Amino acid sequence: MSSVGRSPRAALVTVGDELLLGQTVDTNAAWLGRELGTLGIPVVRRHTVGDISSEIQAAVADALTVADLVVVTGGLGPTPDDLTRDAVAELFGLPLLDDAEVLESLRARVRERGAAELPEPNRRVAQVPAGALKLTNPFGTAPGLAMERDGALVVLLPGVPRELKGIYAGDLRRLALERFSGRLSPVHVRVVRTTGIPESVLAQRVAERLPEGTGPVRLAFLPDLRGVDLRFQATDMTAADAEGLFDALVGTLEDVLAPWRFDAPSGDLAEAVSLALRSRGMRLAVAESCTGGLITKRLTDLPGASDILAGGVVAYANKVKMGVLGVGEEELGRHGAVSKAVAAAMAREVARVLGADAGIGVTGVAGPEGGTPEKPVGTVWYAVAADGRVETRCERFPGDREAVRERAAQAALFLLLRALEARGEGGAGVRG
Amino acid sequence: MSSVGRSPRAALVTVGDELLLGQTVDTNAAWLGRELGTLGIPVVRRHTVGDISSEIQAAVADALTVADLVVVTGGLGPTPDDLTRDAVAELFGLPLLDDAEVLESLRARVRERGAAELPEPNRRVAQVPAGALKLTNPFGTAPGLAMERDGALVVLLPGVPRELKGIYAGDLRRLALERFSGRLSPVHVRVVRTTGIPESVLAQRVAERLPEGTGPVRLAFLPDLRGVDLRFQATDMTAADAEGLFDALVGTLEDVLAPWRFDAPSGDLAEAVSLALRSRGMRLAVAESCTGGLITKRLTDLPGASDILAGGVVAYANKVKMGVLGVGEEELGRHGAVSKAVAAAMAREVARVLGADAGIGVTGVAGPEGGTPEKPVGTVWYAVAADGRVETRCERFPGDREAVRERAAQAALFLLLRALEARGEGGAGVRG
Repeated sequence: MSSVGRSPRAALVTVGDELLLGQTVDTNAAWLGRELGTLGIPVVRRHTVGDISSEIQAAVADALTVADLVVVTGGLGPTPDDLTRDAVAELFGLPLLDDAEVLESLRARVRERGAAELPEPNRRVAQVPAGALKLTNPFGTAPGLAMERDGALVVLLPGVPRELKGIYAGDLRRLALERFSGRLSPVHVRVVRTTGIPESVLAQRVAERLPEGTGPVRLAFLPDLRGVDLRFQATDMTAADAEGLFDALVGTLEDVLAPWRFDAPSGDLAEAVSLALRSRGMRLAVAESCTGGLITKRLTDLPGASDILAGGVVAYANKVKMGVLGVGEEELGRHGAVSKAVAAAMAREVARVLGADAGIGVTGVAGPEGGTPEKPVGTVWYAVAADGRVETRCERFPGDREAVRERAAQAALFLLLRALEARGEGGAGVRG
Repeated sequence: MSSVGRSPRAALVTVGDELLLGQTVDTNAAWLGRELGTLGIPVVRRHTVGDISSEIQAAVADALTVADLVVVTGGLGPTPDDLTRDAVAELFGLPLLDDAEVLESLRARVRERGAAELPEPNRRVAQVPAGALKLTNPFGTAPGLAMERDGALVVLLPGVPRELKGIYAGDLRRLALERFSGRLSPVHVRVVRTTGIPESVLAQRVAERLPEGTGPVRLAFLPDLRGVDLRFQATDMTAADAEGLFDALVGTLEDVLAPWRFDAPSGDLAEAVSLALRSRGMRLAVAESCTGGLITKRLTDLPGASDILAGGVVAYANKVKMGVLGVGEEELGRHGAVSKAVAAAMAREVARVLGADAGIGVTGVAGPEGGTPEKPVGTVWYAVAADGRVETRCERFPGDREAVRERAAQAALFLLLRALEARGEGGAGVRG
């Protein structure tokens, strides 16, 4: 598709039976989507086809109807199911020619490995459609191939992620910048993370606050068990203009978002909590019952966790709650294990026993068994102890065991984050 | 595409800007590819399009030219960027009707959360194209929708993976089995799980043992951080014939596989360990340093974990190792925290302190920081204590922080499983 002047668009064709059958998750497509979007060539359509010549050809032909850049990944290797090179050359009516340079590098590789002769199937890797530009592959023998067709640039890349990324980072990115010079309009994105508010409630409040919509900015709600991300997206403008629009929209939504919002470079609330603990020089201890180690697991996913985490106790049995944490038998007996008193005692005692500055306690009914009329599945008490104060909350989280556990862990981390923020930055409290 | 008699084919249309822009990796497509292939409806084409009505319509129309089953995922939620329902209804010329049943379940959900009224955007979730069949969503409010079109079955599913999987496992699988009854040539599959042996070593030993190959059976090696699955796959034959071939192959490989093999319905070693503990009436306690709660998290992912898990201690700080677990200062001082003596003491002491029948202890350097020439990143000591005996192992696991943690957790669980198997079934040991 030729349309000089307007912003270029990309289409991807990813090739491989293993993708269709689900034996491989198509991470290449996501990676290229991010890279090309950032460059200003958003991907507008994606095809995945099997190792069948006619399917590859149909997908490339369709991609050419919508895109200025068509990237085909996979099927450039030496085995009989690698058909991309032949299929595209045939579609475009281009003869395949042996490339002396690639052939020589293949031979050198074979010699290096101590073999005498180039295996016949490998010769195919050295074939190049007439007139195609070779793109250097820093990590393999099959070069990328670039061709002009119907006013668009068509690029073939190997499916091995490292090789694909290596070719993109070098020759392909440079080629695309040159080819679409003056027409690039990068996609600007801002993501606001929230937790604790259902998608539908958030969407309604946002709609009420923005009755005129979001103008040239597209707004998407991306929910998962841990929360809802708001993604603001704009294109065909400068970065400064986009940032200005994002600021205005987020400003208008300020009081809708504020109670639920957090910031973390990775989008992970555990990272936000880690940063808040680190900047205050504080160490945390965690006592988990129904979440079973999920909170400490998330915190220790991050490098350097030992600076901010003293440790944790997974107290499944009441005996552990009493024996290790010193939660009183009276608290357990009178209120039951899932109670405000026990959550508070867990948070306080785990911090004391492990010598930490702050404590989290979580106790609840994750299900599927264990619910009662008074405390149905999903009922969770959680508590945060810091600076001699203990805050507690009770919620009934919807969903199955996994959902209840994920939501409870997230809610407890969020309660801690808010407690830390309220405290302000600065030195550690008195260690217990 | 109608073609009564021959094996049915599927096409997928996955919808979402976040997929094209690469902010979300399309794991749904891979999952559906596997499930439908196993059922005998291989996916032959896949489209990914953005949140644009005309794009969704073009992709569905194209899918109908090649497939007997078209599955569209994503865009069924309540927010304005959820366009799939409207786009498909318009393409098929079907009016959208309010569904009283869905509306009522939405209202019930809202009441449960204590809100008075159904937010307006949520009403869209209750709209159903005239004549469409609703598919029960066990984990959410938006039902799946199934329609007949041009002799094919067209199904719309929510993009939230859990909801999609829940609908598939229930109504959709049943519907597809009925609809394509008599035309399905299922793919027969047997999976053998291994852990602790690298893919390349395993593949070489298998090749040596099977110099003639695997005949009509396809054998794939599927590695991840936790181990390597061998997938034997056969089609165009009866289940009994396939099982016979699988038995013969697995029998030939018996002594190659035996040291590394485990069985678990879900493929999760934590489940195998849970079952082994349960059948012996034993309870476990876990002391984790570098794995940071990962082992208890995996064990408590499974319902009923309280029967087999007393609890755990995440001992990040040495003070915790000493204070809670009573690991001796001498052991820590003389051998360092990452040592055989400390791993053994952690396993023994956590079982004693938490009153369990068996204990696991793991201590290591997960990285990226903390490595030394003697104990480089990846060095992990792990131990299992049961029946008054302690077994220890040291390994240097390759990979980054996540890889080291996953591999260490898996190795410790596998050591425990082997210890339990050696012990035989039967009553609990003396609790410590």
